[in-house]
Amino acid sequence: MQLIEGKKIAEQIKGEIAAEVQSIIAAGGRAPHLAGVLVGHDGGSESYMTSKVKTCEQCGFKSSLLRFDESITQDELIAAIQGLNNDKGVDGFIVQLPLPRHIDEQAVIEAIDYRKDVDGFHPINVGRMAIGLPCFKPATPSGIMMLLERYKIETRGKHCVVLGRSNIVGKPIATMLMQKGNPGNCTVTVCHSATPNIKELCRQADIIIAALGHPGFVTADMVKEGAVIIDVGTTRVEDPTRERGWRLSGDVDFDNVAPHCSYITPVPGGVGPMTIVSLMHNTLLAATGRAYTD
Amino acid sequence: MQLIEGKKIAEQIKGEIAAEVQSIIAAGGRAPHLAGVLVGHDGGSESYMTSKVKTCEQCGFKSSLLRFDESITQDELIAAIQGLNNDKGVDGFIVQLPLPRHIDEQAVIEAIDYRKDVDGFHPINVGRMAIGLPCFKPATPSGIMMLLERYKIETRGKHCVVLGRSNIVGKPIATMLMQKGNPGNCTVTVCHSATPNIKELCRQADIIIAALGHPGFVTADMVKEGAVIIDVGTTRVEDPTRERGWRLSGDVDFDNVAPHCSYITPVPGGVGPMTIVSLMHNTLLAATGRAYTD
Repeated sequence: MQLIEGKKIAEQIKGEIAAEVQSIIAAGGRAPHLAGVLVGHDGGSESYMTSKVKTCEQCGFKSSLLRFDESITQDELIAAIQGLNNDKGVDGFIVQLPLPRHIDEQAVIEAIDYRKDVDGFHPINVGRMAIGLPCFKPATPSGIMMLLERYKIETRGKHCVVLGRSNIVGKPIATMLMQKGNPGNCTVTVCHSATPNIKELCRQADIIIAALGHPGFVTADMVKEGAVIIDVGTTRVEDPTRERGWRLSGDVDFDNVAPHCSYITPVPGGVGPMTIVSLMHNTLLAATGRAYTD
Repeated sequence: MQLIEGKKIAEQIKGEIAAEVQSIIAAGGRAPHLAGVLVGHDGGSESYMTSKVKTCEQCGFKSSLLRFDESITQDELIAAIQGLNNDKGVDGFIVQLPLPRHIDEQAVIEAIDYRKDVDGFHPINVGRMAIGLPCFKPATPSGIMMLLERYKIETRGKHCVVLGRSNIVGKPIATMLMQKGNPGNCTVTVCHSATPNIKELCRQADIIIAALGHPGFVTADMVKEGAVIIDVGTTRVEDPTRERGWRLSGDVDFDNVAPHCSYITPVPGGVGPMTIVSLMHNTLLAATGRAYTD
């Protein structure tokens, strides 16, 4: 069993990005600039945004944060987004979700110029991804693809079972893995809450991508000997042994599943760190004008 | 075994659309208007376009056809498309594919105003479909969904195996069937040319959607007793017993498979007639402003 060390790979890729930024600057260019929009004071959103800003620094990016009170109207928020769309100094930006209930998230996402949509949530990017055209790909599935690539995990002709059909993980990773390409060319099965025989399907999988948000869902009896396990789950579960009172739990019963795998991602330190790195990668593509050609 | 009579259902739906058009006109409105763009003189394209025009008549739609010589430049074609985008008398339009080699099909598709893109090929429509938002859905998968609905075929929790990963059938029908909804909520497996064990996977399927373009690919030994078979294949195969020298062949070995099925579509007369009806349905949505609300 080999551990897929997402944290280590993330550090490597950040180093590669930082090196490219240095050459850009050495050649007289400017640092890529990622802007973030944060509405309200949700604890989770605050800490995600802090990590993103910190990672920008590690990559040599400029970052800026636009903060708005929870009382902002949708029109005011969209006006701010249009400001970022028109700001030639900003290469890409993200609007941290969730937004307050009085704001239509989809309307906000669609107000983003898709050429600066480094989260890859705009329908144009989602559609281009589905068709197989160059685009900003969503961060988490993109991070999974990078891990498969860096560990040279064979995907062609393999049966990949995806657990979960969310718009940000399950559906896009299924699409990416079924496309022609490497990684890619998988036979893909998507399971979800309405699937009656998940265990049986998982036992057939060469690769399982667990993205249900259900701690410990994937147990040892669901895993074929030698399977590759990618755990996207990150649920906070109570843990009185930790000072902060909780720990992150994946969707996989790691201790009992790991001995049966060829490769497995830990939680934390697996897919999580790759998500922010994918965002940095997208920002670099935006800054260098490569998003729609690479 | 029950035959899914696509031709009959298509006639019914055309009747329903024609009735709605009559009420629109009775209320002082105008008939929906579908325009088609045809470049060159490909035999297949000519006959598809003729069928579409004829179906418009049956539905009470206005139709118009813009014909261009094969020598048209991409810029000239895009200018014609912009004319249709701006023409308030045109509710929706299609550009018949394939286009001559010197024209970038994707650039042409993206020049279409997505709000008139009744083929559902524009990335915005593809993306909205993937996300599960209202949009123009592509005609063939949409026609399959209508058949499943009209025959009240249970899809929730069923395992659907899709053969083929094309942008116009395989990938979109997989997405539609895995979404929440009815029809929908299927566990979906997508198989393709790189899948080594298609037979074994098909034998597990409650529903098989065959869209490979490989005549007679699905044989009786691949089909579970009681399965639902949707055959999207339409390949011309030589047939000296026919005056024209050919017949249409589906992807399913119909004679041997049918006895094992609960439902099966014939070729011709199954999915084919539904494709044009879906296009009419999209045109009606465009004309009544319902495409992005229904």
